[in-house]
Amino acid sequence: MPKREEMYKFDEQKFLLDGLKVYAIRVSIEEAADRLAGRQFSNLVLTGVGGTTAELHAVRRIVEIYSDIPVHLLNAAEARACADRRITKDSLLITASKSGDTKETVEICRYARELGATVASFVATADCPLAKVSDEVIVSPEEGMENTYLRLYLFILRYLYQKGCFPAYERFADQMKRLHPEALRVKHRYDATADENTRKYYKEPYQIWIGSDMVFGELTLLTMCVLEEMQWMRNRLVSSAEFFHGTLELVEKDVMVTLVKGLGPCRELDERVERFLQGRTDKLVVVDLEEVRLTGIDEEFQYLLSPVLFANVMEGRYCWNLEKYSGHDLSIRRYYRQFEY
Amino acid sequence: MPKREEMYKFDEQKFLLDGLKVYAIRVSIEEAADRLAGRQFSNLVLTGVGGTTAELHAVRRIVEIYSDIPVHLLNAAEARACADRRITKDSLLITASKSGDTKETVEICRYARELGATVASFVATADCPLAKVSDEVIVSPEEGMENTYLRLYLFILRYLYQKGCFPAYERFADQMKRLHPEALRVKHRYDATADENTRKYYKEPYQIWIGSDMVFGELTLLTMCVLEEMQWMRNRLVSSAEFFHGTLELVEKDVMVTLVKGLGPCRELDERVERFLQGRTDKLVVVDLEEVRLTGIDEEFQYLLSPVLFANVMEGRYCWNLEKYSGHDLSIRRYYRQFEY
Repeated sequence: MPKREEMYKFDEQKFLLDGLKVYAIRVSIEEAADRLAGRQFSNLVLTGVGGTTAELHAVRRIVEIYSDIPVHLLNAAEARACADRRITKDSLLITASKSGDTKETVEICRYARELGATVASFVATADCPLAKVSDEVIVSPEEGMENTYLRLYLFILRYLYQKGCFPAYERFADQMKRLHPEALRVKHRYDATADENTRKYYKEPYQIWIGSDMVFGELTLLTMCVLEEMQWMRNRLVSSAEFFHGTLELVEKDVMVTLVKGLGPCRELDERVERFLQGRTDKLVVVDLEEVRLTGIDEEFQYLLSPVLFANVMEGRYCWNLEKYSGHDLSIRRYYRQFEY
Repeated sequence: MPKREEMYKFDEQKFLLDGLKVYAIRVSIEEAADRLAGRQFSNLVLTGVGGTTAELHAVRRIVEIYSDIPVHLLNAAEARACADRRITKDSLLITASKSGDTKETVEICRYARELGATVASFVATADCPLAKVSDEVIVSPEEGMENTYLRLYLFILRYLYQKGCFPAYERFADQMKRLHPEALRVKHRYDATADENTRKYYKEPYQIWIGSDMVFGELTLLTMCVLEEMQWMRNRLVSSAEFFHGTLELVEKDVMVTLVKGLGPCRELDERVERFLQGRTDKLVVVDLEEVRLTGIDEEFQYLLSPVLFANVMEGRYCWNLEKYSGHDLSIRRYYRQFEY
């Protein structure tokens, strides 16, 4: 076994312990999903703002792939402003807020419950404002994308299992015990790559990021919530399919492009982008999810987990290495939550 | 009446004549919509790539606002790659292609019809590849966003009328006779503003564009298909609601921001952005759709028409003025359709 280097700003013991804590509430997540699955809803409304809608993107894809249950991903502020007719007394809203007080999210839940809708929320503390406007509350303060997705996936896949749409649930949930130890192993392996890429490109004045399908929400999170919000870095995110209808014209030899080659059926679209980019930029970073797989987890689940595979090495290592080189602390904001607006 | 200046690269007579030609096929569009509305479909699948999906964004919103008909907007390449389960034998696909041979679009229609689905398409010539894989074809070669939306809106609103969801159809369609003359009047009024803004900002190294709701697809079209594809200009498009969750941190005194203040219920979200931006950038352009309304068209239709109001002055005048100052002909491409990729 190769010697493990210590990783910049990463506490291994805390990471593993947090994983155990989240896995420990598996049963209570399942019980919440079971209670809700026992009722009839006309649709699932996934809602929130910013990072939360980005995370819920994968949840929507999962529902779309395994079921015919009507599912909508709505920005909370827009849905409230236009009193979106898809939110009715028969809707199940699923949302989350790390702070527990995101005003747009609290407001859409308050509004939806006035209509008679049901709200399930993922929060860090039981007494936060969002919990107060929710019918089912999953309380779990552990941060990090692995934990965020583990909670969401246990919930939605259990819900689909109870609806007869995801028979593999028990196997999936059992294998999730391996998530954190495996994620840690892959982080160690990827850290040198993250170091190299961020050292080379931390000063780029503009970057193009490209990817598809299951991982697109997580790419939104990284480019908006990390690169823009935490590093003030200008970038353009575009899907592999849409890239060819505009953004391709911005590719030049000295324009940095990061391409995510995902797992699953849309990988061919990412590969088409890769062929186009060869020789057209000298600053190409390919994040190939094939290379950051988690062992001991079934093939069919790796595709579902592709946002986790991505976040594990990107939010998990790339972003920290970026901070190391840019010298721009990830916690510094100019505006966000610095004052009322 | 003020003297009308001649507008750069704009043929008024052709514009008005094209409008008459499109309006002249109103009846055949209605007949196509009526035939389809007489059948039962399980959902509407709006599909295409690039500019087409951008245009169909407004069609989706209209269906969502006036009906409970399940409607999906799918990128044709992704939907085909993952054999999207929402496309079934009972689906009605609605698509368009200016060239008539967009390969992703032709392929998804071919695939959908193999499943037994029905395809309605908007094309410029009756013998194009897309027409050959369509059940209903609306042939109309007139370019320009006013014509694109006029065709789409007559079709979808007539369809909704026949389903009992849009009783105001006849009034709407009758008022559309005024669309082109009114659009021309507003273009004349806006041209000086477009000239001024593009003269000031045609060299900006990076721009942020912000807007909401009904107009967001048209903003995607402008920023991707015009600014990126035709002018090679770096930009970031973000919705007014999501702006506050990342992109706001990129605002600086010398960063150009274009904010669209739309019509309808989400205008308050745009106004919130405007308040935030005051004093934080010296390069703010506000495109207020209140100021480019079309007279003689009922208030309730102006909101539906907001992509047309926007495109009329932006694609219609802003983009041409941009070409005038940048010296970058809108028809020049580095890559797009220059070779196989």
